[in-house]
Amino acid sequence: MSELRVRDVSEADLLDRILRVLGPGSRAEIGPGDDAAVLAVPGGRVVATTDTLVHGPDFRLAWTSPYDLGFKSAAVNVADVAAMGARPTALLVALALPDWLPATFVDALATGLRDALAELAPGCAVEGGDLTVSETLTVAVTALGVLDGVEPVRRSGARPGHDVAVAGRLGAAGRGLRVLFGRFRDADGTPLPVREDELSAAERDDLDAQLRPRPPVGLGVAAARAGASALMDVSDGLLLDASRIADASGVTICLDADLDDDALSGGEDHALLACFPAGSAPPGFDVIGQVIERGEAAVLVRGTVPRVRGGWDPYADWDSELG
Amino acid sequence: MSELRVRDVSEADLLDRILRVLGPGSRAEIGPGDDAAVLAVPGGRVVATTDTLVHGPDFRLAWTSPYDLGFKSAAVNVADVAAMGARPTALLVALALPDWLPATFVDALATGLRDALAELAPGCAVEGGDLTVSETLTVAVTALGVLDGVEPVRRSGARPGHDVAVAGRLGAAGRGLRVLFGRFRDADGTPLPVREDELSAAERDDLDAQLRPRPPVGLGVAAARAGASALMDVSDGLLLDASRIADASGVTICLDADLDDDALSGGEDHALLACFPAGSAPPGFDVIGQVIERGEAAVLVRGTVPRVRGGWDPYADWDSELG
Repeated sequence: MSELRVRDVSEADLLDRILRVLGPGSRAEIGPGDDAAVLAVPGGRVVATTDTLVHGPDFRLAWTSPYDLGFKSAAVNVADVAAMGARPTALLVALALPDWLPATFVDALATGLRDALAELAPGCAVEGGDLTVSETLTVAVTALGVLDGVEPVRRSGARPGHDVAVAGRLGAAGRGLRVLFGRFRDADGTPLPVREDELSAAERDDLDAQLRPRPPVGLGVAAARAGASALMDVSDGLLLDASRIADASGVTICLDADLDDDALSGGEDHALLACFPAGSAPPGFDVIGQVIERGEAAVLVRGTVPRVRGGWDPYADWDSELG
Repeated sequence: MSELRVRDVSEADLLDRILRVLGPGSRAEIGPGDDAAVLAVPGGRVVATTDTLVHGPDFRLAWTSPYDLGFKSAAVNVADVAAMGARPTALLVALALPDWLPATFVDALATGLRDALAELAPGCAVEGGDLTVSETLTVAVTALGVLDGVEPVRRSGARPGHDVAVAGRLGAAGRGLRVLFGRFRDADGTPLPVREDELSAAERDDLDAQLRPRPPVGLGVAAARAGASALMDVSDGLLLDASRIADASGVTICLDADLDDDALSGGEDHALLACFPAGSAPPGFDVIGQVIERGEAAVLVRGTVPRVRGGWDPYADWDSELG
């Protein structure tokens, strides 16, 4: 019996499969099935963000399972909501699927979405979305959230004397990507399936951080409650993202902790980077530096201007030939 | 001098170009530039929807200018907000761009977004988004809206005796698509540029309806205020969409007006289809039929079961070979 593919089923069938996995998770006044969702927004303010994962620059099917793709799509978006000091409440998920994909692909993807929300953002559910076809598998997620009686935390409030602190891992996701690029591609750069028996436990752990990131979403609200003066998620590498807070706040950030190059420049960990009045970082955050008056450099590492390059730019850095 | 392409500029430069076009349009508490936007939601309820346009199934660059792509991306999303009886307040726009696109492409796309919002949904602005690269040009838009003191209008409230009414055009967008498919493709099915001098005024008008739809967004709120019992936007053809209201409401919809096959089965007009207690359709809506007790068929056209096929299914209907 030949495998059922996306092109063999109707949109309604595909949607049924997804909603069956996501189950009765909706918390909305009006959830999936109408022209739009209607969500309660206690406090009268909604936090909204969108982040898209595209096959090629953002993931490869040779390395990323559909479950992991769903998991990561949810994780990176709820991390952005947390990075405002908010609590994620709803996702809208737009899937653009190649028609040759097995229909079971969407089941696994939906399971990954569901599990990520259950683990990272309990109370958050998929409340809407869109289905279309594309030659390039693309998952475009929008996350909405609410502010539980706190003010949103921007990047611009860091002041000299404040502590710089981080919650979550730094460097692991970048190391995981290096394992994939270095060890699981052929001579032409084509991704090859990961051979699990060739991985050390540490490498497996780094790969998990890359493929199934677990940002400390609940600590976003905790940071806001503790009086964070600046907050963001570290998606493009600590140096680059710290420089964004430094520039927005008009300060210099001095990183004093023992941070290796992976921790300084590796992206995609989705740790939370925050500044707090001295001594007020809440449990879950580790102080890694201090804020000082603005000097020439946005960021100093143990007193010197860092030489490692930070961050990833999808337009300047992506090479569609090499991938 | 060679043309600047997406791959030649940084993400920050590209974002600057877009924000320069969108200008100081933000109405949000926190607009573009942080991890997420923060929007005021008077009434404590937000309406949220997402719709993605993918190169291939949803548009072709040979036929659709970047301006029109921006315009249509905004229009189809605010139409879904209107179809709940709500007023659109914010868009999040995720662009996945092939790296060979001219950098000016994003300027024109942003101009189309801006102009569509100014014309169709004044007060609504782009408040966030995402930029990434993709081999397949993809525009994933999320629209948010608020309910101005009215209850959201679902599809399930139509009752026997209610009028069925429509606001906006029916059939033109489908005719426009037929002009493109029938006249501006080569023998292999590859899209060819539209030769304006070969178009009649009526064809030009149909093409505009397809490429730059103008749904009557403001009439969504008007319908809700007038007590609409069901409301949706006609994106997949009147017959199919009317059957969705009929099924959700457990009624049969009888269409009596003089509607040709284009009006019955053409998609993508994004007209508003509504049911109202008899005689209460507000200005802007034309009564085209009545709601009766549920019979065998979901929809009757002048008393008989329609033979024309309605609607478009991206999974069952899209042929990636033919396009």
